[in-house]
Amino acid sequence: MLPFSRVAIIGLGLIGSSLTRAVREHMPTVRLTGHDADPAVRARAVEIGLVDDVTDQAATAVTDADLVILCVPVGAMAEVAAAIAPELSNGAVVSDVGSVKASVIEAVQPLLPAGTHFIPAHPVAGTEHSGPDAGFSTLFHNRWCILTPPEGADQTAVARVTDFWTKIGANVEIMDARHHDLVLAVTSHLPHLIAYTIVGTASDLEDVTQSEVIKYSAGGFRDFTRIAASDPTMWRDVFLANREAVLEILQRFTEDLTALQRAIRWGDGDALYTLFSRTREIRRSIIEEGQDDARPDFGRTHE
Amino acid sequence: MLPFSRVAIIGLGLIGSSLTRAVREHMPTVRLTGHDADPAVRARAVEIGLVDDVTDQAATAVTDADLVILCVPVGAMAEVAAAIAPELSNGAVVSDVGSVKASVIEAVQPLLPAGTHFIPAHPVAGTEHSGPDAGFSTLFHNRWCILTPPEGADQTAVARVTDFWTKIGANVEIMDARHHDLVLAVTSHLPHLIAYTIVGTASDLEDVTQSEVIKYSAGGFRDFTRIAASDPTMWRDVFLANREAVLEILQRFTEDLTALQRAIRWGDGDALYTLFSRTREIRRSIIEEGQDDARPDFGRTHE
Repeated sequence: MLPFSRVAIIGLGLIGSSLTRAVREHMPTVRLTGHDADPAVRARAVEIGLVDDVTDQAATAVTDADLVILCVPVGAMAEVAAAIAPELSNGAVVSDVGSVKASVIEAVQPLLPAGTHFIPAHPVAGTEHSGPDAGFSTLFHNRWCILTPPEGADQTAVARVTDFWTKIGANVEIMDARHHDLVLAVTSHLPHLIAYTIVGTASDLEDVTQSEVIKYSAGGFRDFTRIAASDPTMWRDVFLANREAVLEILQRFTEDLTALQRAIRWGDGDALYTLFSRTREIRRSIIEEGQDDARPDFGRTHE
Repeated sequence: MLPFSRVAIIGLGLIGSSLTRAVREHMPTVRLTGHDADPAVRARAVEIGLVDDVTDQAATAVTDADLVILCVPVGAMAEVAAAIAPELSNGAVVSDVGSVKASVIEAVQPLLPAGTHFIPAHPVAGTEHSGPDAGFSTLFHNRWCILTPPEGADQTAVARVTDFWTKIGANVEIMDARHHDLVLAVTSHLPHLIAYTIVGTASDLEDVTQSEVIKYSAGGFRDFTRIAASDPTMWRDVFLANREAVLEILQRFTEDLTALQRAIRWGDGDALYTLFSRTREIRRSIIEEGQDDARPDFGRTHE
């Protein structure tokens, strides 16, 4: 038995188009509708057959849908929610894939009509590529999808959304929205902020050329450029929407970096060695838990 | 015609053992000797046949060698140089693979006897793994090896070392040692410092558990754990040996991070968007230059 039979995906970028592909693969009888604000993306979605019906208006896509998933940048959630609200069926479940949860709940929840259920979700998965061609059906396999149902949320709706994500290969976890925002500030938002910063710093030096940075990037720098190539609109919105948690974690990071800076300045090799020794363990655990590639150097080809 | 016929590798870890494998593959007639300070590594080197002769003393390995490559942590270079100096043949070329060059030249050069040639080198290649089993013959393929010959270095020796690295698949660049240290502070040392820091920060939080950090690491964090799993002794030595350049680049990074922090605090979305948009270009160039994997998500498997 399928948890939903008519699914609408609003936003057909990397995540939205991966979702439609995953639904096609695992729940082929589901009727899929889709919308994207960008006419070029809509045209491409038609061309590659991402959904059964691509609509020009978001509201038209959600008519009759029993599950609507908002796959737009966090800053665009409220506008989309307002646009679809009048067309939502009674009993429809609305969900999203935003990387920040408390602010999305605050923005979206009040706009949805009585009789609908908002069950926010965040699949912790992605690549550095964007757009409808970047998606693929296995993106969520063995990745975690975190649901942050607001207090008093309908438990049947939560169970159905859980079933939906499980069917496309994800593991589901339920979490408080504020706690989600703090956890993701550590495991996702700060890493992106730092990667963007270091790539920016390296581009702006006077004594080291851009060409040198590129040539010798295999020394470590190139690892940072992957996530610094992520979608700029999405990430601008994440930092604006999760300001407090990001600033809190950034403060901790800066303190730790300052301590290391001081150890380098004073030649305190023991302090450096102690930190550098205990960071191996965490990578080992990530690999054991199936959250990263065990092959050396991310399995990069050496030909 | 081979540039060298008897090569001694001192230090049989990731880099040293990759070198012996590459020499075997591309210059099979070369006689290879090797030494490692760790008896367990020596025993393993014998077991897997890394070299023709594993010696208990570094000095014994270099007798008759026409090329000696020091593959030990930067902080151990002087001790090894002093140990081998009495046994070096007249005309022997001594090189190394250290990630810092000015301090290695300063430490090693004065210890080598007249009639030998010191041609420092740094192959910009590696993985997060260590030890004699971690090496592989293609590690240096299409990677850059930077030579930093001191003023007045013998040009024939430089040409022979260039030939050696080219034969095992690397591209060779000649650079001033101080400039090398600044360039690598950007493309390698700062990235490692930041990766070690953020992995440390994430391990030390009170409100986010280690298990949460591991589970949700696919949001970006896991990319940093790879280089934070690198050899602690090697990296302690790099930061102690390249203090000035690292502190200079770190200062720039901190300024840039502070500017972003301020943009987040004041909700300056335009500043964030501007930076996030220009960092994509540099990754594209790295891929075009063959210095990283073009596949999304580093080609990680999604099964």
